[in-house]
Amino acid sequence: MSSSSAAPAAKPPMRDALVAAAFQLFLERGYEQTTVDDIVALAGVGRRSFFRYFPSKEDVVFPDHERCLADMTAFLAASDAEHDPVRRVCDAARLVLGMYAENPTFSVQRYRLTKQVPGLRAYELSVVWRYERALAEYLRGRFAGRPDGTLQADVIAAAVVAAHNNALRSWLRSDGLGDAGAAVDHALGYVQRAFGHATERAAAPAPIGPLPAGEAAGRSDDVVVLVSRRDAPMWRVVQELEAALGRA
Amino acid sequence: MSSSSAAPAAKPPMRDALVAAAFQLFLERGYEQTTVDDIVALAGVGRRSFFRYFPSKEDVVFPDHERCLADMTAFLAASDAEHDPVRRVCDAARLVLGMYAENPTFSVQRYRLTKQVPGLRAYELSVVWRYERALAEYLRGRFAGRPDGTLQADVIAAAVVAAHNNALRSWLRSDGLGDAGAAVDHALGYVQRAFGHATERAAAPAPIGPLPAGEAAGRSDDVVVLVSRRDAPMWRVVQELEAALGRA
Repeated sequence: MSSSSAAPAAKPPMRDALVAAAFQLFLERGYEQTTVDDIVALAGVGRRSFFRYFPSKEDVVFPDHERCLADMTAFLAASDAEHDPVRRVCDAARLVLGMYAENPTFSVQRYRLTKQVPGLRAYELSVVWRYERALAEYLRGRFAGRPDGTLQADVIAAAVVAAHNNALRSWLRSDGLGDAGAAVDHALGYVQRAFGHATERAAAPAPIGPLPAGEAAGRSDDVVVLVSRRDAPMWRVVQELEAALGRA
Repeated sequence: MSSSSAAPAAKPPMRDALVAAAFQLFLERGYEQTTVDDIVALAGVGRRSFFRYFPSKEDVVFPDHERCLADMTAFLAASDAEHDPVRRVCDAARLVLGMYAENPTFSVQRYRLTKQVPGLRAYELSVVWRYERALAEYLRGRFAGRPDGTLQADVIAAAVVAAHNNALRSWLRSDGLGDAGAAVDHALGYVQRAFGHATERAAAPAPIGPLPAGEAAGRSDDVVVLVSRRDAPMWRVVQELEAALGRA
């Protein structure tokens, strides 16, 4: 039937035709009321062609997630020790955003459809879970040997996914108008600020350290004086501060 | 059949009998190979009794999540402005842990079963999503008016759920041995440290504030001196530090 010598990166037009036919019918008569037979009839192909590309009717709603998951896995596998781990998983999440932003009209249609069909929401949850696990597995590898490595990996992966999805959904709710990339950057920035300092401990200049209260400024005992190099990373300064304030 | 005048807190014994029969069969012959007819036959009741308590076979695997979700919603609804929001959602998550820890043997059996049956994993994802949304909705209310209120709410809710589940799953993997409560406390502590400071901005004493570089200690311009009250909350100190270091 189809040539197996086709370049793997090229999307088969038949696959696109099936997606287009499916969405036309989903929008016209509803998802539940559309059968695979309806879709293949409109696309002018046989049932076997449909199931060669999609395991089920649900999969045609999310035709690009498998590719995107593979891209994300490859991207993370291509990381090295030089990459800041939190920044790296944020960049990996941006691959998902890119997939949605590639085709705003389709993404907005699918968003509306998914909101209406509980089975599609369940499917989407399982896809989101797979992205989250891909990020968490990468972070677990990077944090191996830390006492709370798996905990930190799982929490950061979940936070990255939640931030990404918060921005993505806002953009989809606004009908795909506005700058999705800027919104996701802003959202991921929040996560990087919350967790980034925990991952930079390798090679960063130290602050000079706290002085005992009063030593530098002659103040009373309920005052702490911290002297820090201006280029010290914030987490090191905070670490010193916590120690000085007895809250480490 | 059953008396509707029973105290609402008391679990009907028939419901327990159905859960026990179901799990006996799931463990003996597998989840997929067990029908609702098998379950009601072993429990000695009719099919209608089963469906009075459980909408589907999947629901009998997770008999207490609806009650726990209702408890969580009630707990969050009973909050007031005095409650630290991040601490409050952590306490709400502990209600879920309590449900699992109530019956370790059952929880461990279910964990093993859920790992083997994709349909149950999907069901569990949807339950986890509902817990996460309950936490996020509460936080969205508490953060209303903040510029990034919904973003922060979604991210913190996801982080709390991920931390809770990381500790819960470790405990389940260890066959329910060890102190589940301590493990969850430790995991939630990580989230509280990452996000807690963002939520205490209401009524906290201010640090004294930074001095211009060199004013207190006579150091060169690449050094910052911060003088702080010892009881100032860390986020205020960090805020001042960021301003002093030009990174706000």
